[in-house]
Amino acid sequence: MWRDLRPLGRAADTGGYRRFAWTGADADCRAWFRDQARSRGLEYELDRNGNQWAWLGDPAAGDAVVTGSHLDSVPDGGAFDGPLGVVSSFAALDELRERGRELSRPLAVVNFGDEEGARFGLACVGSRLTAGQLSPEKARELRDADGVTLPQAMERAGYDPAAIGPDPERLARIGAFIELHVEQGRALDLSGDPVGIASAIWPHGRWRFDFHGEANHAGTTRLADRRDPMLTYATTVLAARKRAELAGALATFGKVAVEPNGVNAIPSLVRGWLDSRAADQGTLDTVVAAIEQAAVECGERDGVEVRVTRESFTPVVEFRHALRDELARILGGTADRPGPGRTGAPESGRTAAPESGRTGVPVLGTGAGHDAGILSASVPTAMLFVRNPTGVSHSPAESAAEDDCVAGVTALADVLEGLACR
Amino acid sequence: MWRDLRPLGRAADTGGYRRFAWTGADADCRAWFRDQARSRGLEYELDRNGNQWAWLGDPAAGDAVVTGSHLDSVPDGGAFDGPLGVVSSFAALDELRERGRELSRPLAVVNFGDEEGARFGLACVGSRLTAGQLSPEKARELRDADGVTLPQAMERAGYDPAAIGPDPERLARIGAFIELHVEQGRALDLSGDPVGIASAIWPHGRWRFDFHGEANHAGTTRLADRRDPMLTYATTVLAARKRAELAGALATFGKVAVEPNGVNAIPSLVRGWLDSRAADQGTLDTVVAAIEQAAVECGERDGVEVRVTRESFTPVVEFRHALRDELARILGGTADRPGPGRTGAPESGRTAAPESGRTGVPVLGTGAGHDAGILSASVPTAMLFVRNPTGVSHSPAESAAEDDCVAGVTALADVLEGLACR
Repeated sequence: MWRDLRPLGRAADTGGYRRFAWTGADADCRAWFRDQARSRGLEYELDRNGNQWAWLGDPAAGDAVVTGSHLDSVPDGGAFDGPLGVVSSFAALDELRERGRELSRPLAVVNFGDEEGARFGLACVGSRLTAGQLSPEKARELRDADGVTLPQAMERAGYDPAAIGPDPERLARIGAFIELHVEQGRALDLSGDPVGIASAIWPHGRWRFDFHGEANHAGTTRLADRRDPMLTYATTVLAARKRAELAGALATFGKVAVEPNGVNAIPSLVRGWLDSRAADQGTLDTVVAAIEQAAVECGERDGVEVRVTRESFTPVVEFRHALRDELARILGGTADRPGPGRTGAPESGRTAAPESGRTGVPVLGTGAGHDAGILSASVPTAMLFVRNPTGVSHSPAESAAEDDCVAGVTALADVLEGLACR
Repeated sequence: MWRDLRPLGRAADTGGYRRFAWTGADADCRAWFRDQARSRGLEYELDRNGNQWAWLGDPAAGDAVVTGSHLDSVPDGGAFDGPLGVVSSFAALDELRERGRELSRPLAVVNFGDEEGARFGLACVGSRLTAGQLSPEKARELRDADGVTLPQAMERAGYDPAAIGPDPERLARIGAFIELHVEQGRALDLSGDPVGIASAIWPHGRWRFDFHGEANHAGTTRLADRRDPMLTYATTVLAARKRAELAGALATFGKVAVEPNGVNAIPSLVRGWLDSRAADQGTLDTVVAAIEQAAVECGERDGVEVRVTRESFTPVVEFRHALRDELARILGGTADRPGPGRTGAPESGRTAAPESGRTGVPVLGTGAGHDAGILSASVPTAMLFVRNPTGVSHSPAESAAEDDCVAGVTALADVLEGLACR
């Protein structure tokens, strides 16, 4: 199954994947999904938003257990982010059939379209449209870097852009959605576990820091007479790291713009963008406020005016405790209902070791968005993570050991069996 | 005289000057110069490189004393950088005539073309060509931001680009060149002197620092697992300031480029350009080596590889001691032969107070390049600086008090009288 999928959309120069929505590579991945469904005798469906479904049992029966992920990629992405979830879903279905258990609820595998947003700049377009979190009007305005609109791209790929929109009937059929995903961090590697359960998707946001100084001649202006915003920016970058470290949060300055950006000119303006995420809203607020305070204080010292603008914000997505606890029970005991776990500190949440002697499963948060995060507003949703030995993500170096992938399939099969079999 | 010059090439929106080589504003300034020469009965000459000369006495007599500066500006520059020297030269000639002294040597005022290099990216094109420090072939390859070559620009302005090249006969006529310039710093303001003498133009250079880290997801990568080059860059910016401060030198990171420069991406590469200048070569070497060492050490801590490339370098221009001492003697005593003075520490060089009771004149270095620096390789050269109360330069906020401008004219007249009158 992996063998057929692996070469699709892979760039020869970097070894990275370029599976962007509604391209030829995307069509190849979709054809692969359809083939997998048909070769298993599953009922194949394409929904109005281009998401693909493969059903075992009658969809109309309702209270279905659905599992899956996405097949598209970021530019030069890795082999696992997305595809591991879809491949594991089909493999778990195979295992479930081998176990010979009788289904009490319908099962389905799903491939959500355009999760990464690599082409049109908005993530989770397929799940957002279905869940009514993106209006068809807004979606039709999306354009790629060449100016091609989403409707044009869909048409060229043979899909009907007039059909897109919310799909409450389809969502109403789903009783539980489980997404398996390669971990985008090293929490499981550090705790020594092949598989973990998601507690929450961290709240996260972007803040623009404008540092206004005074342009001047780099060759003649005394240090004492400068109002150099690059110094304030540099101090703020280091303060952000420090504050995030102290709070167990994340803070990154990855984008910067300088005016006039001349080698012999003290800048008049340095603009830096902060990406910050934390396990809970309170921690995130505290970290960002502390970074802002450090910037302003340092700005006063440097004669630099600091203005901070919040450009975007996504609140915490807390996966429903009932389903999360059910997964924990199935996989190894009772969850001890931890708060949102922390990336890099999975020991903060761990299910209790059950009587069977099986060790508990770590419960951990994540800073990344997922289709599961979108669906969680409409449907009971949970996530499983598979260990990523390097933590590298969105890169060809992303990896997962074969044993861990097998452990992921077994865990997913256990979950499907626990939820959907008598 | 100022009144006529002031409005030329001034932008209505910023109040700054945009007098770029071979533009209409430049032509207006050149016409002003020609009018000033003719209205005084001076012999007007345009040389092969577009520099303008106004002669009092016979140029062919040789051993001339020449004074002047430039009329072009940086983008949105101030009113004084350049023009103060030209205006003061004409005013000093007027004063000399009023004093009724007889000339023993010919005198001239010069306007060097394209000193700032704002249009073609190379400074001091007029004086470089004349002094043979820029070949006509190289000059003809210069292009502005619109792709217009220097020859095309000269032709459009009515000049012959085929004529440009070294002019040793003209240089051979000059016995001394004195450039008066508004100070581009606050040394005179701090020492309380209206006028100072230049000791040297500091050695200066540009170094490119490449910080190579690892691109990763800003939302999922543990802080401990990052190789974030922005942190190393920030630490290096602060180390540069510190090292420059300790050594009495200048160090500036004014330009930066980031890859991929995405808000939610840890950068793979941060490229920062260091501009550093110091009073002497040894200090500059020490400062840059210390900054480089700090970058490399910090890079090891951050898992970031640091590569440093020297992109350009200009060695120290030490103005000839004999002429400098002569100026100091004329203006207030005997210079105590200081080493290259330091911007911001003018007390490190000061002429001894003479018996007349007049206080000595401060001797100070500068980090900025000048036509005087170019000519000093061929001709005995000295510079006078006029106090700049804010130190601001290359900005509409650049200024000099009227009293100080008058003091500058008087000092220049004294120097011309001392050098060229019996």
